[in-house]
Amino acid sequence: MPFTPSPSDNFTFGLWTVGNTGRDPFGEPTRPRLSPAEIVELLGEVGGVRGVNFHDNDLIPIDASPAESRQIKADFARALKRHKLKVAMATTNLFTDPAFKDGAFTSNDAEVRAYAIQKTMRGMDLGAEFGAKIYVFWGGREGTETDAAKDPIESEARFRRAIDFLCDYSRSKNYGYRFALEAKPNEPRGHMFFPTTGSYLAFIATLKHPGMVGVNPEVAHEHMAGLNFSHAVAQALAANKLFHIDLNDQQFGRYDQDFRFGAADIKSAFFLVKLLEDNAYKGFRHFDAHAYRTSDRKDVIEFARGCMRTYLILKDKARRWNADPEVRRLQRTIRRDNARLDELWSRYSATSAAALSRREFDRQAMAARPLPYERLDQRTMEILLGV
Amino acid sequence: MPFTPSPSDNFTFGLWTVGNTGRDPFGEPTRPRLSPAEIVELLGEVGGVRGVNFHDNDLIPIDASPAESRQIKADFARALKRHKLKVAMATTNLFTDPAFKDGAFTSNDAEVRAYAIQKTMRGMDLGAEFGAKIYVFWGGREGTETDAAKDPIESEARFRRAIDFLCDYSRSKNYGYRFALEAKPNEPRGHMFFPTTGSYLAFIATLKHPGMVGVNPEVAHEHMAGLNFSHAVAQALAANKLFHIDLNDQQFGRYDQDFRFGAADIKSAFFLVKLLEDNAYKGFRHFDAHAYRTSDRKDVIEFARGCMRTYLILKDKARRWNADPEVRRLQRTIRRDNARLDELWSRYSATSAAALSRREFDRQAMAARPLPYERLDQRTMEILLGV
Amino acid sequence: MPFTPSPSDNFTFGLWTVGNTGRDPFGEPTRPRLSPAEIVELLGEVGGVRGVNFHDNDLIPIDASPAESRQIKADFARALKRHKLKVAMATTNLFTDPAFKDGAFTSNDAEVRAYAIQKTMRGMDLGAEFGAKIYVFWGGREGTETDAAKDPIESEARFRRAIDFLCDYSRSKNYGYRFALEAKPNEPRGHMFFPTTGSYLAFIATLKHPGMVGVNPEVAHEHMAGLNFSHAVAQALAANKLFHIDLNDQQFGRYDQDFRFGAADIKSAFFLVKLLEDNAYKGFRHFDAHAYRTSDRKDVIEFARGCMRTYLILKDKARRWNADPEVRRLQRTIRRDNARLDELWSRYSATSAAALSRREFDRQAMAARPLPYERLDQRTMEILLGV
Amino acid sequence: MPFTPSPSDNFTFGLWTVGNTGRDPFGEPTRPRLSPAEIVELLGEVGGVRGVNFHDNDLIPIDASPAESRQIKADFARALKRHKLKVAMATTNLFTDPAFKDGAFTSNDAEVRAYAIQKTMRGMDLGAEFGAKIYVFWGGREGTETDAAKDPIESEARFRRAIDFLCDYSRSKNYGYRFALEAKPNEPRGHMFFPTTGSYLAFIATLKHPGMVGVNPEVAHEHMAGLNFSHAVAQALAANKLFHIDLNDQQFGRYDQDFRFGAADIKSAFFLVKLLEDNAYKGFRHFDAHAYRTSDRKDVIEFARGCMRTYLILKDKARRWNADPEVRRLQRTIRRDNARLDELWSRYSATSAAALSRREFDRQAMAARPLPYERLDQRTMEILLGV
Repeated sequence: MPFTPSPSDNFTFGLWTVGNTGRDPFGEPTRPRLSPAEIVELLGEVGGVRGVNFHDNDLIPIDASPAESRQIKADFARALKRHKLKVAMATTNLFTDPAFKDGAFTSNDAEVRAYAIQKTMRGMDLGAEFGAKIYVFWGGREGTETDAAKDPIESEARFRRAIDFLCDYSRSKNYGYRFALEAKPNEPRGHMFFPTTGSYLAFIATLKHPGMVGVNPEVAHEHMAGLNFSHAVAQALAANKLFHIDLNDQQFGRYDQDFRFGAADIKSAFFLVKLLEDNAYKGFRHFDAHAYRTSDRKDVIEFARGCMRTYLILKDKARRWNADPEVRRLQRTIRRDNARLDELWSRYSATSAAALSRREFDRQAMAARPLPYERLDQRTMEILLGV
Repeated sequence: MPFTPSPSDNFTFGLWTVGNTGRDPFGEPTRPRLSPAEIVELLGEVGGVRGVNFHDNDLIPIDASPAESRQIKADFARALKRHKLKVAMATTNLFTDPAFKDGAFTSNDAEVRAYAIQKTMRGMDLGAEFGAKIYVFWGGREGTETDAAKDPIESEARFRRAIDFLCDYSRSKNYGYRFALEAKPNEPRGHMFFPTTGSYLAFIATLKHPGMVGVNPEVAHEHMAGLNFSHAVAQALAANKLFHIDLNDQQFGRYDQDFRFGAADIKSAFFLVKLLEDNAYKGFRHFDAHAYRTSDRKDVIEFARGCMRTYLILKDKARRWNADPEVRRLQRTIRRDNARLDELWSRYSATSAAALSRREFDRQAMAARPLPYERLDQRTMEILLGV
Repeated sequence: MPFTPSPSDNFTFGLWTVGNTGRDPFGEPTRPRLSPAEIVELLGEVGGVRGVNFHDNDLIPIDASPAESRQIKADFARALKRHKLKVAMATTNLFTDPAFKDGAFTSNDAEVRAYAIQKTMRGMDLGAEFGAKIYVFWGGREGTETDAAKDPIESEARFRRAIDFLCDYSRSKNYGYRFALEAKPNEPRGHMFFPTTGSYLAFIATLKHPGMVGVNPEVAHEHMAGLNFSHAVAQALAANKLFHIDLNDQQFGRYDQDFRFGAADIKSAFFLVKLLEDNAYKGFRHFDAHAYRTSDRKDVIEFARGCMRTYLILKDKARRWNADPEVRRLQRTIRRDNARLDELWSRYSATSAAALSRREFDRQAMAARPLPYERLDQRTMEILLGV
Repeated sequence: MPFTPSPSDNFTFGLWTVGNTGRDPFGEPTRPRLSPAEIVELLGEVGGVRGVNFHDNDLIPIDASPAESRQIKADFARALKRHKLKVAMATTNLFTDPAFKDGAFTSNDAEVRAYAIQKTMRGMDLGAEFGAKIYVFWGGREGTETDAAKDPIESEARFRRAIDFLCDYSRSKNYGYRFALEAKPNEPRGHMFFPTTGSYLAFIATLKHPGMVGVNPEVAHEHMAGLNFSHAVAQALAANKLFHIDLNDQQFGRYDQDFRFGAADIKSAFFLVKLLEDNAYKGFRHFDAHAYRTSDRKDVIEFARGCMRTYLILKDKARRWNADPEVRRLQRTIRRDNARLDELWSRYSATSAAALSRREFDRQAMAARPLPYERLDQRTMEILLGV
């Protein structure tokens, strides 16, 4: 059976993804809340999944007693073992509770900031307890509706101090975490700090321990701003900063949709899978998506299977694309390499600069060279369409 | 006469801004092409301007003869002197000529790449001749319509090598340039590499000479992606990378509009001016905008005056906002500082981590504290509206 | 005290607006749920409000007993009387309950469709009991996430039959309702039918009783699609179809924000108020907005006052704009009336067509005439800014 | 050879589409200007095309002499005959010449308005000379950058008078034209009147001769506003107003891209083709797109072939989808018809209203019914992907 996932594909799901109850700003839940163990059961039924991810409060409710907490953890651990699933990533919920209504690390209230750090420390303890090695930071409330509310420079400084402190905390505990920062331009705040993956890549360079911090780009978040997701991922890959990835889909310029992977823009999904596979990305492929609010349990299972099947179908298409004779022929036309010319400016020297400066170029000839990109793109579409 | 600009305000205009002829994708020019010297005359008539900026081919047409070139430069220099204007910034046109139809530094054609480097070297020579100390890079064709066309990782590497080489070229010539990289998400290409200011800030950290490279954020370019421009500028300011700024305006999610500063979103313009002034930004305020296609010469002058007046009005509003008793009172309610709490995590130690870990927080109490942001934003609006 | 609202200003608020609890997709409520009577108390404290609007289930919970229902209505009526508020508009909640997860009138389930009609009939009964004369239809779930789900032609036909039936129901009961249809492009559904006010204006012409059906345009909904709201309102006004209006604000291309009126785009808000006032719009000005999730009760009151104050400030600015000598002078330059030329094509005749056909026009002369729109827009901005 | 077009497929191209020279706001032309006859030659080489469309000035330059005009027409007619192509649609260029810088029918200058009417009359004469029966109106300059410039109500009235007059002109000449109005939200103007197909459908109902006026929806124009194009087309089909259609593609929320059909959003293109074919749309399928600026003549031909192939591939996919056993099985689950329930409200009577009013519904049961839309959408994707 082709396109059937297996754990070696490194596919993961957050507890909050297949466990999503279908509540939205205009409607009440359409699906029952499942316990963490029940969600693991569901993923077992889906089949082929490698692991699960959680926010601290996906696993342990914010107001659970110690006894409840122990019971939940024991049930969860048993379910993981039964279904041979691992915990791949953990993260902190710093957005649901009203205490975080104005942010966590960037709150204007010193007590909220301190509490957010403490809550993250405990979330890291919990993740470590289940073997997670990736810790994600999504600053769901780190932003404003009005720029009168916060100084953006001070807010960045606060966020930096928080990450620096938590890096040290991880090191002091030997947790071995790699941190992955997740950007989003807006929603639930009017404007969120660090709106794009690029902003976080820039921020990381200013940290105390930049080596242990990377990014967790999410398709939907970059698409909300109408940006090319593959380009953001490529910049992260080039910097060795792609520590994790959130796969889903989303139409440009609207509310956070978290659709099934590939459901909105199959062509972009194809180039993304091709990029990850061509560059031998080793990390988890996390489907940070949820089923339509209309779905019941059975359809949630189909949703999860669909995410993985689409990935595998596109991986196969990428292989075909790379091997396609016409694609290869077109690429030979398009790429005009000239190592000697490149050498003139690949490393600076007065000699090479002078040589380059002297050289004569024929603009008309350059402009006239064929670039059959329409044909290449149409061939790409037809490989995608299976014709 | 209040709100009258003077050269000390550091306002500049590109030759292509007030010299724009009103051509667009659906229409022919509505204004005559002006020579560089005539554009300087026009700016002299506008009054209060500090300087002008140019692309190499704004000054010298791409096919000018040496004699023509000499004449243009002489005329231009005379006009500058007459109107006491300086050249503030120079840049390269790597997008108009068909030779660059598929990019310059990231072209798939080695000859185009080499030619683009050579053209930039000559543009730098030209800028230096007129005393420019800022050199801007906008990669107008560095992108794709289809991701089948270019490898984004290779493209970034090519762009990096180009900037590294050109940094060395500037140093070898003692030009004293600071490079300012200008992001844009799309148009004229379907997707452009380095779509946001954040992407460029991240890229700079990977360069050979990161210290001499900063950014040139543009309001319209960040707004095209629906992003908060002030937040992008704040990140650049915090990193000491705001080397230049392009002021104009633009509605979210559409074609590049380059409207008069403040014309689309006065509230965002206000917070931007406040950010620049509160942080004592020392650089040029470049109005990279153009008059409506319906404008004639007289209205172009009004357009240019309007850009500067709006900036000065907003600067005055920022001063009023900072001094407003109600704003100050509201800020006292909103900010809940607590230096002792902040100290617990401002620098990591096992002791402070343990102390923070032990501390008990009252979530309900934190959630209950007032944050009168509606009142603060309404007061802000009324200061803006002058009531 | 200038800009203080009074009931004659016709300002109204929905129970769900000032009663909003601050729940969002990522967070729990930050404000307590208020009873309808308590919301009326709050509006009394705000001061100057004309009336309130409700969805059936804002007033009577979907599962209330007859006794509870009676009590709620009695309390609500008393509070209305005490604060001299009227019920201006009523509408049906056809989106919160999971039964409507796939739509109401356009559901694929015949039983859901019938139930939605019944629920609307009862909602109309309830509105009539409180004297409402406007009944709004917002099809919050009438759409799809995938076009595989519903035939859009059949869906429109179902929606039409529902409106036709309910028009007849209103007439049979002598309720005197005018129906106002409210468009929205997306959220909570991926795509919603009748995405813009224009779509509904077109739909109305196909109804059995077009005369009793108009539109209820909402700023935020048109702005989500990046559309000019004033233009949509103008088309409705020209067709005598502006039966109601939802005032709030929203940035283009993102989630439904429902910000305080004028908070996102003050210039568009100005032109909207000017349009309504210049055309002597007689209906209610409904603020379909809610306070930030960070606000407490006191700040919710400031939010409501801010909506009304901003409207009144802009009304005053519109008066000033109409009277401004420079604006008038510019308008005289811009408008080039010529009644004799207009007559040639204002009514068709063979003679006028022949005369027009023969006439010679001077394209260059027309192109050369000044249109000082930059100056006019700058003057408009300065009137707005109060300088 | 599957997916090879033939004239019976009713595919057409505008002269300006395959004749596009690759000029854009930032670049000069990359392809030579072709004469109308040469463009027809090119379409002959493409193969399988039914016809061509033109703006008056695509065929006859605005400043051509009578002799030049006669020669161009003769050459064009010969080329059409040689390649067995017909003229399917004609339209007026009311946007390129500077005389139209502020609009045509809605210009503030009475002389421009009259000239625009005259130019359209002549354009209609020219179209009729070549047998066109569809006449398209795209108001490329009918809008504003600032709402201070034009009264939107007066502008609509002017546009209405123009269309009414031109309807009468067509009738008086027995041209047999059907008018097709084409909406666009913005570009080249900041905001354009009649921004969506819905706005025009509403406008048509207010005309003197509504029966002879329909719409010409364009994929890219509706996508610029992030709207579902199929839904707009469905509303036009339901009203018998789909007189023409412009097929191309475009990403949401950006400049007008006019990409090859299906190149940006293959899933939306699929549902569109399915809608047209399921409803037996009889009109022309006009590809109002152009090749990338990087393309040369050969690649322009590939572009044109790609438009048609993609349409035919999607038509075949639509047939497969309609016949797919799993799709049919899922549809049987999803649709819950109940003719007796529908009858209760399909036509109003006191009896049926009373019966509906009395009926008891089980909300929980309705909410619990399965709607396997994730499975249906995934199956749709896999049919598209050919697996």
